[in-house]
Amino acid sequence: MARWLPNPSQRLVVAALDLFSERGYENTTVVEIAERAGLTKSTFFRHFPDKREVLFGGEAMADLVAQGIAAAPAEAGPLEAVAHALDAIGREAFTPDRREFSTRRRAVIAANPELREREALKGLGLTASMIDALKRRGIPDLASCVAAELGALAWKIAYERWSDPANDDEFGEVARRALDEVRAASALC
Amino acid sequence: MARWLPNPSQRLVVAALDLFSERGYENTTVVEIAERAGLTKSTFFRHFPDKREVLFGGEAMADLVAQGIAAAPAEAGPLEAVAHALDAIGREAFTPDRREFSTRRRAVIAANPELREREALKGLGLTASMIDALKRRGIPDLASCVAAELGALAWKIAYERWSDPANDDEFGEVARRALDEVRAASALC
Repeated sequence: MARWLPNPSQRLVVAALDLFSERGYENTTVVEIAERAGLTKSTFFRHFPDKREVLFGGEAMADLVAQGIAAAPAEAGPLEAVAHALDAIGREAFTPDRREFSTRRRAVIAANPELREREALKGLGLTASMIDALKRRGIPDLASCVAAELGALAWKIAYERWSDPANDDEFGEVARRALDEVRAASALC
Repeated sequence: MARWLPNPSQRLVVAALDLFSERGYENTTVVEIAERAGLTKSTFFRHFPDKREVLFGGEAMADLVAQGIAAAPAEAGPLEAVAHALDAIGREAFTPDRREFSTRRRAVIAANPELREREALKGLGLTASMIDALKRRGIPDLASCVAAELGALAWKIAYERWSDPANDDEFGEVARRALDEVRAASALC
């Protein structure tokens, strides 16, 4: 099926997820992913530096987050700017047609320590991207760090809830609710 | 000098830090670390799983943090319990005689991407250890997560300040001030 998607990068991602689900991450090679996608190994390496990276979409998500924060209204406070970034993620990346893919992706990552490690590092990269974008709005350094950490926590909670097949809500709504819960919890700490 | 420390694990850590400072992390082998410490390669691998781990002290720090949180007075709220963990770190691990070592350790880690990655993952492990310990106090899940994230941020800020050779204060004091600043910043988000 991956073969029929128009975009080589998407075809590789879907082929990789199919193979990781079928036979496990460790038992899948880059050559097999490329073959399943109807592409070559060198095409794979033009899109991804290694097998681990294929499920993580490079820098696209960090860029989306930074743009979402930059585009928040001038009067938005730190956490409200983060909420705008989560809205952008819901519009551009975690769209309803990606929910099923995300459910399967989560299961594959949960099953493999190397992928869990890469996901954790990606999460730190996203937090760093939020911090930079918040500082560029003139928010003081420490408030930028705190808002980004709380935003990253809300993101994680929202992604788990949204990628649950039983959930019908859009990512942006799920994320704003999670952010409200995180804000309320922090007031009680 | 590492040769004269009583504890093999400490000798290996000091020898590794000396060699990493002198010739770089990439240009140092496990055999060379063991030789500098007056020990064998197999002794090295009894103490550490690989070269990267030698600067990170295994699970000892995560255990200290968990014990510090467990030992906080029953009436302590989530962030106050985290402050007790930071006090314990100051008493047991980041003692004044470790400051110079910590300054050099930070410089070596900052210079190497592999070590920075391992440090980031260790930080996530410490946060997870704080979350578990807070939950065991009966603190709700989300409040445990928020307090641990804020505590991890305060820890990072405090470690940077404390390991600055110009700083004379004890780690526990530096950490409590950082935690107060983080709490104040979160109230403004």
